[in-house]
Amino acid sequence: MKTYSFKNDYSEGCHPYILEALIKTNLDQQNGYAYDEYSDEAKELIKNKINDQTAEIYFVSGGTQANLLVISSILRPHESVVSAETGHIFTNETGAIEATGHKIHGIVTEDGKLKPEHIQSVLDSHTNKPHQLKQKLVYISNSTEIGTIYQKQELKQLYEFCQANNLYLFLDGARLGQALTSEINDLTLEAIANFTDVFYLGGTKNGALLGEAIVITNDNLKEEFGFHIKQKGALLAKGRLLGIQFLELMKNDLYFDLAKISNVQAMKIKSAFQDKGFQFLSETFTNQIFPILNNSQIEKLSENFDFYVWKKMDEDNSAIRIITSWATSDEVVEGFINEIKAL
Amino acid sequence: MKTYSFKNDYSEGCHPYILEALIKTNLDQQNGYAYDEYSDEAKELIKNKINDQTAEIYFVSGGTQANLLVISSILRPHESVVSAETGHIFTNETGAIEATGHKIHGIVTEDGKLKPEHIQSVLDSHTNKPHQLKQKLVYISNSTEIGTIYQKQELKQLYEFCQANNLYLFLDGARLGQALTSEINDLTLEAIANFTDVFYLGGTKNGALLGEAIVITNDNLKEEFGFHIKQKGALLAKGRLLGIQFLELMKNDLYFDLAKISNVQAMKIKSAFQDKGFQFLSETFTNQIFPILNNSQIEKLSENFDFYVWKKMDEDNSAIRIITSWATSDEVVEGFINEIKAL
Amino acid sequence: MKTYSFKNDYSEGCHPYILEALIKTNLDQQNGYAYDEYSDEAKELIKNKINDQTAEIYFVSGGTQANLLVISSILRPHESVVSAETGHIFTNETGAIEATGHKIHGIVTEDGKLKPEHIQSVLDSHTNKPHQLKQKLVYISNSTEIGTIYQKQELKQLYEFCQANNLYLFLDGARLGQALTSEINDLTLEAIANFTDVFYLGGTKNGALLGEAIVITNDNLKEEFGFHIKQKGALLAKGRLLGIQFLELMKNDLYFDLAKISNVQAMKIKSAFQDKGFQFLSETFTNQIFPILNNSQIEKLSENFDFYVWKKMDEDNSAIRIITSWATSDEVVEGFINEIKAL
Amino acid sequence: MKTYSFKNDYSEGCHPYILEALIKTNLDQQNGYAYDEYSDEAKELIKNKINDQTAEIYFVSGGTQANLLVISSILRPHESVVSAETGHIFTNETGAIEATGHKIHGIVTEDGKLKPEHIQSVLDSHTNKPHQLKQKLVYISNSTEIGTIYQKQELKQLYEFCQANNLYLFLDGARLGQALTSEINDLTLEAIANFTDVFYLGGTKNGALLGEAIVITNDNLKEEFGFHIKQKGALLAKGRLLGIQFLELMKNDLYFDLAKISNVQAMKIKSAFQDKGFQFLSETFTNQIFPILNNSQIEKLSENFDFYVWKKMDEDNSAIRIITSWATSDEVVEGFINEIKAL
Repeated sequence: MKTYSFKNDYSEGCHPYILEALIKTNLDQQNGYAYDEYSDEAKELIKNKINDQTAEIYFVSGGTQANLLVISSILRPHESVVSAETGHIFTNETGAIEATGHKIHGIVTEDGKLKPEHIQSVLDSHTNKPHQLKQKLVYISNSTEIGTIYQKQELKQLYEFCQANNLYLFLDGARLGQALTSEINDLTLEAIANFTDVFYLGGTKNGALLGEAIVITNDNLKEEFGFHIKQKGALLAKGRLLGIQFLELMKNDLYFDLAKISNVQAMKIKSAFQDKGFQFLSETFTNQIFPILNNSQIEKLSENFDFYVWKKMDEDNSAIRIITSWATSDEVVEGFINEIKAL
Repeated sequence: MKTYSFKNDYSEGCHPYILEALIKTNLDQQNGYAYDEYSDEAKELIKNKINDQTAEIYFVSGGTQANLLVISSILRPHESVVSAETGHIFTNETGAIEATGHKIHGIVTEDGKLKPEHIQSVLDSHTNKPHQLKQKLVYISNSTEIGTIYQKQELKQLYEFCQANNLYLFLDGARLGQALTSEINDLTLEAIANFTDVFYLGGTKNGALLGEAIVITNDNLKEEFGFHIKQKGALLAKGRLLGIQFLELMKNDLYFDLAKISNVQAMKIKSAFQDKGFQFLSETFTNQIFPILNNSQIEKLSENFDFYVWKKMDEDNSAIRIITSWATSDEVVEGFINEIKAL
Repeated sequence: MKTYSFKNDYSEGCHPYILEALIKTNLDQQNGYAYDEYSDEAKELIKNKINDQTAEIYFVSGGTQANLLVISSILRPHESVVSAETGHIFTNETGAIEATGHKIHGIVTEDGKLKPEHIQSVLDSHTNKPHQLKQKLVYISNSTEIGTIYQKQELKQLYEFCQANNLYLFLDGARLGQALTSEINDLTLEAIANFTDVFYLGGTKNGALLGEAIVITNDNLKEEFGFHIKQKGALLAKGRLLGIQFLELMKNDLYFDLAKISNVQAMKIKSAFQDKGFQFLSETFTNQIFPILNNSQIEKLSENFDFYVWKKMDEDNSAIRIITSWATSDEVVEGFINEIKAL
Repeated sequence: MKTYSFKNDYSEGCHPYILEALIKTNLDQQNGYAYDEYSDEAKELIKNKINDQTAEIYFVSGGTQANLLVISSILRPHESVVSAETGHIFTNETGAIEATGHKIHGIVTEDGKLKPEHIQSVLDSHTNKPHQLKQKLVYISNSTEIGTIYQKQELKQLYEFCQANNLYLFLDGARLGQALTSEINDLTLEAIANFTDVFYLGGTKNGALLGEAIVITNDNLKEEFGFHIKQKGALLAKGRLLGIQFLELMKNDLYFDLAKISNVQAMKIKSAFQDKGFQFLSETFTNQIFPILNNSQIEKLSENFDFYVWKKMDEDNSAIRIITSWATSDEVVEGFINEIKAL
């Protein structure tokens, strides 16, 4: 038996519906560079879902690309962005943001989530103008890089704080589907649109071959965004590839169905660990879980399953990371749970 | 009857073999970020074809992305690149190269091709160091943006000039397949590798959904290229998507077969125009042709076919651009030729 | 006898009044970073002279610095600047503008001056948005790099064209004093302020040790300019050094008196060449002249005087460049004229 | 009586010897752009003092400029720099380093000084290549921004660690004179040169009108540095202004004499505070001291003296910052000490 990988949520190709759509549309001639009919239709579906016909929507290939495009298009040279130190842009994108000329102020958090007081502390320590940077943007992720999610009240407070302080709020939604279908979630896609200035819906980690949908709701940020996409090498000649995928994902809420599957599978595994009395590095309700095991248990589970050893707790114990996806089958989950039970 | 578009070579999806491979491999779990098995296999095929097992190969999404990655990874801040003014990087990529900090010296050419004397003239007018930039890189395209191609002797001379002047030579091969299968071509893929320091094989305009294969043969340029791909947002989580496509294209020389089809279809149409006595803006032997028609002829052809009116020659006449692709069927070509005959 | 240099207008230190002011103020304690009293006073004098109390004025060290600060502070990433190919930013500043991420569209001109039709041609060839850059700024110099100057009507037309086309107009005044005191000039400093959005008054080439005064008159460009000065390393801790110099230069119009001297000395030399029947590369009325001499005449003059051989006209003749300054004495000019007469 | 400012060490002009030299050399014609004789002589003196005739030396205007020039010239796009969070580049230069495209990894330290283990911790948390940046440079200051200095053994260990880990070591010497003349210092200028790859000698805060002398001792970093100076707008047309000043400062060790005066004056004031039993925020032996006073004491001292209230300790007490300079007279110090005694 070959090992099964729980290392990430992009180990497989894409949902079969997408392949079917690619086959069906393959020889239709379409305009290039995102002017195809499928992209138009997909945008309409997203606009309807957030109840904002004026939103501007752009499809790009990946999360790092979306992050650098949004941030570099917004900031003037002397402006900076605030992020949690766990934020993907801070240490996991090879300095992509700094490469566009902008500093990221990193904040140590407990749970990967930013609060108004975090931002305030950065503002307070940067009052010596013009020797210090002007903060202009706040970057958050939902779900976060460590699997936690924002509650509606938290997001609302953060957004209101940003508005009061002349800051834009940008939400990285590489795993937004998982956040919005978490059992403890109280946000909707429309609320996400209402309480941010710009965000994106991740496709790559939720059933697409590639693709993130950037949604700009603040009028100030809409102007001429298309130029940046081309300049940064992010404009696909065959934009149809992204349009077709988001059209499939948005139709009949496939996007949310897939995200929910990934969450449910993770929660089953979480329960199995809990039932055996295992502790967790952090409490999560999305498709990432971080149980703490001892070395021999890790070794045992590694025989048939791949996963990352995430953080060494002491000489004998480490937290591991288990990620599930839309493609994680019941059979695999059951097999894994059986092994957990046997630990 | 719906109009048929000759506007570009990326109006359709991809060759059916690619779709078949995507379906077949869809649920195989693979490592992310270009560490998948398909990418490895595709790289092997390319290395074999250029007869260089030490080459480093990277798959990225598009041409502008490939151009900015290669150029910005090579140049230090005070170094610049030389290009024909028709070169894609000069006016058609929204300043992507300058956005990474580097000037492009534009050269007016007759046929879109650079010659040693062109480069020499730039070197001669930039001798006042350090007030003037240091030229370090030469950028060419094959086939060029206006459909012409380099002969072996031309490329060899240019490469030797670059070597003698401490310059790197970079070849944009967005339409390299078309160049190498042109009826007047005398270059091979191996020769391309031998007479450049870095080049890429375009997939997007030759049967892939997306993808260009960057091939680095000069050891000086290999170091740490992967960092740049991630930093510029060009590293796909599901790198398999690119690997699978180049694997299909390289297997059994599908890549060259498809390019040849696009050339042959264009040459048929070219003959039809020639037979009717039409002139051309430039003489081309690849999949782009630029016949000169009068306004009523253009209007007539536009009824059933889409194409760009490329350049106004005088009040009554303009050159149009006709581009064919691997997906241009004999039936369409025949229909178009019939309309040409009827002009 | 040591040779005398006509190579440039920055071979000496500074006007003696400046040294006297430095001595006199030396031990007065002042706030750093341009918040000193001398800078304030100097700014007041300039505001009065342009009759605009709302202008924002900043003193920086040199011309390249002023150019990159102004241009990079104005442009968003996808915006570009238009310049004559003789413009200092185009080939003589080591790619300083491109290093901040922006393309310069170079225009071939007859006399170093831009006209509306030049700009229009760039706009006309960049209509394929977003694949082509958005032009947002026009850069001109007065006097130009080849000694010519703008007439009032020319500047006014250019400014009105810019306004009609949503472009900013930036005037590099490294030798603005020489332009405004030329015998054929019909512009005033106030007119310069009225017909540009931002410009600077050069000190380095007109009697100061170093220093250019950037004057921003368009409200859109005033916001937060100080941040850019600090970020680009252009903010002097002892800003007093720049303030004191511009205070001396602006008091009693010393600035214009010095510029006039440099022009008058050049015109005397020009007359001497004309009287002997020499031709010129271009007709200039400022402190740069470009007479065409044969090789033996150049050799003869080189015995006692240094100057640049500017442009080879044919095997036997070249244009040389003679630059005078506020420090060029009557005695030196007479000695040179005697040698010209003896040719 | 007007208040006397202890706010910084750049409140006055320059040492009188410099003014005398400016007067004496004023009308000598010199080549521009750092090719003057004074710069050559000053460089010779520095080379002799560090006992390295192969060092490359460049004079620039200020510290932020020196920092961004050195760092951006060394790093490739995917490389980063490590600094203490108190390091001047981290929060006090308006993101100047990030504006050139590079991330600064900030480290919390006790005393403003970096140790090998600090750097190791950054290396250890950035092993996921190419998703994380490659650290290539370590930035330190001596004296530090909070007045502390490196001992020889500390610097040597740090340098050896850097060498062992393929990192360059860059020392910001804006206040290097003060460090090397501190009563507890055991380093020489030669040792500084030996245990770093590049450093600079600050003039602005030690008697010059402006100017820092960048000294490059590692051969790898010497290549083509001059281009960067021009490109970043840091090349003065009248480079003589910097050459003359460093010639005066280096002749007869004026540089060290002035630094020593600033230290001695600070130590006298420190003693006075100590004698009265005051505590300090940190123990310093250079020209910056940070005594902790209660609010009424601060108010009392503020009547005749200006200084920054540096850090609030609690409701009733704050640390203030007192900076002395070469221009701080014995009379002023005595007057201040008398007021301290009277507290």
